[in-house]
Amino acid sequence: MARTAATKVARPRGGTPERMKQNGSSTRQEIVTTSLRLAALQGLSGMTLGQVATALRMSKAGIYAHFSSKQELQLATLEAAYAAFLEEVAVPALAAPPGLARVLAMLDGYVAYIQARKDRGGCFFTSLALEFDGRPGEIRDRLFALREARIGLIETMLAEARELGELGPDADVRQLAFEAITLTLGANVDFMLSQNPEVFERWRRALTLRLDGVRR
Amino acid sequence: MARTAATKVARPRGGTPERMKQNGSSTRQEIVTTSLRLAALQGLSGMTLGQVATALRMSKAGIYAHFSSKQELQLATLEAAYAAFLEEVAVPALAAPPGLARVLAMLDGYVAYIQARKDRGGCFFTSLALEFDGRPGEIRDRLFALREARIGLIETMLAEARELGELGPDADVRQLAFEAITLTLGANVDFMLSQNPEVFERWRRALTLRLDGVRR
Repeated sequence: MARTAATKVARPRGGTPERMKQNGSSTRQEIVTTSLRLAALQGLSGMTLGQVATALRMSKAGIYAHFSSKQELQLATLEAAYAAFLEEVAVPALAAPPGLARVLAMLDGYVAYIQARKDRGGCFFTSLALEFDGRPGEIRDRLFALREARIGLIETMLAEARELGELGPDADVRQLAFEAITLTLGANVDFMLSQNPEVFERWRRALTLRLDGVRR
Repeated sequence: MARTAATKVARPRGGTPERMKQNGSSTRQEIVTTSLRLAALQGLSGMTLGQVATALRMSKAGIYAHFSSKQELQLATLEAAYAAFLEEVAVPALAAPPGLARVLAMLDGYVAYIQARKDRGGCFFTSLALEFDGRPGEIRDRLFALREARIGLIETMLAEARELGELGPDADVRQLAFEAITLTLGANVDFMLSQNPEVFERWRRALTLRLDGVRR
């Protein structure tokens, strides 16, 4: 039982928000926040250092004082996006009891995260996956690692449900986590096109049916 | 039984390919083909008439002789993309016997369509959904109609399976069609990021499990 309460939420690189404050300056954080806002609308490649500087009434040299390259800012932006995802989706789910209730809280949180961004491209990581699919490199590697981290979080929560006896001992939690995330990514695409919340009603029905099928 | 063999494949606007040949010229078709190739790599907005002209060693005025605006070319490009989808995915599925075999042939065809485009952004319609989510207008309306058409095709095939007695009389074919398409869109995103074909093995397992659950 002790292990089941121990879902670990992987920290974004650069340590805790507190640690980041000590390392960087508030200007650095403002730059990242602005970059994230621009990248959500026009992509992490489309966003330019010039735009970030203009939005903050800074010079480009001022940006370079904090980030040595556009890629460094892009990677910092990705970490900030993942920190926001953890804060809005994973951390609140830990308030739910371990097991299927927590899995569903996490997935409902993911949908709330998408809906909150319906005017900013929905799930930031889905947009980036399609932006960087043909571009190998550090950003894509990190995107891939963050994808594994998101699936891993759900998988851990499902494994807890199995330990608690809510799922049968043979439940394939990796497959279930894949299906839950894939269905959510697909619903994100569908919702961004249709802007119809019915998408998430169907999504929830699909998810519930699937989990009921393996519930003990 | 007669009705079950009558899955209709909606024709793209502008009629059959034969009809399009009569209406337009081969230059017009070359322009659209080039536009489609460029749009798959950089988006339907990112693609410019200048690039299309350069690729075809034409003047921009030469493009305007066939398309009065960028949007007209974008819409023609969308129709060409849907015609390719029908030709590669829907038409071959009609060779499978009606019912669940045809549904699976259609979905396997969709995955083959994605894999064939792994260096060109995967499913063209998924990329466009995320490109146009915040941009109301004719292109987005047409994207939405084509999304309904794709779900509708699967729904019709599932309804045939129900008529044939392969699914129970209460099977919610709209929900099943939604799940099948959503899972496929999600797998597309996941595959574009990971380039790992295991994604589609898990996708197929999920689909088979779901259909087995409602099979009579």
